[in-house]
Amino acid sequence: MMAHVPLFTHPNPERVLIIGGGDGGVMRECVKHPSVKEVILCDIDKMVPEVSKKYLPNMSKGFDSPKSTLYIGDGIEFMRNHLDSFDVIITDSSDPVGPAEALFTDEYYQLMKSALREGGIVCSQGECMWLHLEMLAKMIKFNKNIYPSVGYGYVCIPTYPSGQIGLLMCGKAEGTDFSTPARELTEEEVEKWELRYYNSAIHKAAFVLPEFARKVLK
Amino acid sequence: MMAHVPLFTHPNPERVLIIGGGDGGVMRECVKHPSVKEVILCDIDKMVPEVSKKYLPNMSKGFDSPKSTLYIGDGIEFMRNHLDSFDVIITDSSDPVGPAEALFTDEYYQLMKSALREGGIVCSQGECMWLHLEMLAKMIKFNKNIYPSVGYGYVCIPTYPSGQIGLLMCGKAEGTDFSTPARELTEEEVEKWELRYYNSAIHKAAFVLPEFARKVLK
Repeated sequence: MMAHVPLFTHPNPERVLIIGGGDGGVMRECVKHPSVKEVILCDIDKMVPEVSKKYLPNMSKGFDSPKSTLYIGDGIEFMRNHLDSFDVIITDSSDPVGPAEALFTDEYYQLMKSALREGGIVCSQGECMWLHLEMLAKMIKFNKNIYPSVGYGYVCIPTYPSGQIGLLMCGKAEGTDFSTPARELTEEEVEKWELRYYNSAIHKAAFVLPEFARKVLK
Repeated sequence: MMAHVPLFTHPNPERVLIIGGGDGGVMRECVKHPSVKEVILCDIDKMVPEVSKKYLPNMSKGFDSPKSTLYIGDGIEFMRNHLDSFDVIITDSSDPVGPAEALFTDEYYQLMKSALREGGIVCSQGECMWLHLEMLAKMIKFNKNIYPSVGYGYVCIPTYPSGQIGLLMCGKAEGTDFSTPARELTEEEVEKWELRYYNSAIHKAAFVLPEFARKVLK
């Protein structure tokens, strides 16, 4: 979902940057998109892709794609050196304590905006509406001062705290409707792409929030 | 959600039966509906409502409604004595081990059908699509032989195993679309009814399943 929701929202994604996500799962899904020409994954910890390649071959197989480039280093520095470069930036990070703390600040979202091309879309680890509602409200508020379009969706993942992970979405284009895929997949395509969670209907439903969250995150 | 989804799907619910649900939470939500004239709650264990009334006053306050009747006894026997009686039957049970095991069988769904009036709707504890997919597939299959309309939705609840509980829905009327509320609430009504999860949009979204579950539970 973290890969397909932004990629299907963008009208024609060609260049994708993944910050974090060293396990390769998001990479594996990004390279499936025919319009995508290049996916750069930038992880600060070289052990993560190494261990994933060794022990999680199905998770890490996207690294074998000719579209894939692995860069080990600081994502913030990488973006400063690659302004106006990407159609989609996905931040697949850990929680905002320790090394990932900087990835939840307004400076980080400002930097992502500079690294996006015109019409670009950001999809970031959006924690959990049941646990971090106040923090998310603050993040949405500062992002509304940075981006013309901001949205919040979620994915159910039983192994995550409270069974969910959020998708905090920002768009450089005015009026981006994150809940409406620019391209819809047929049942046959969903099967062919080996998608186990994503389909075009759940893309839309992911942005419908329970009332307690809708009121605060709208 | 367990109360509002069936009650808002039914065109004009007047008489409601709750099997289990002794804590009173479902009762509290049912009595909010203006069309509802009577809600009978049938729990086999008299301790549950007693303890809830004592320690969970906000959960159990629905028992104070003049629409509410509490009956302590076996729900199966109760339904056998009240055929053709209810517009909505909600089974708010524990898991299918021990006392609640009988509430997951085709005989039980057959009996609920007999206790429903014309156009009646059933909403039952539908476990979790991440944990019990095969069991749910079987239940949907046998219910398609009993009811002309069958559907499956879910609610996110962090305290439940894997963070979800399912809603297994059956309708006595042909072509019942459980994902479309017969009446929609305005934002003001949602506020006035003190709904913290339910709104008309999430009613619809609750029936959109991730691909792995959609394929099996359709």
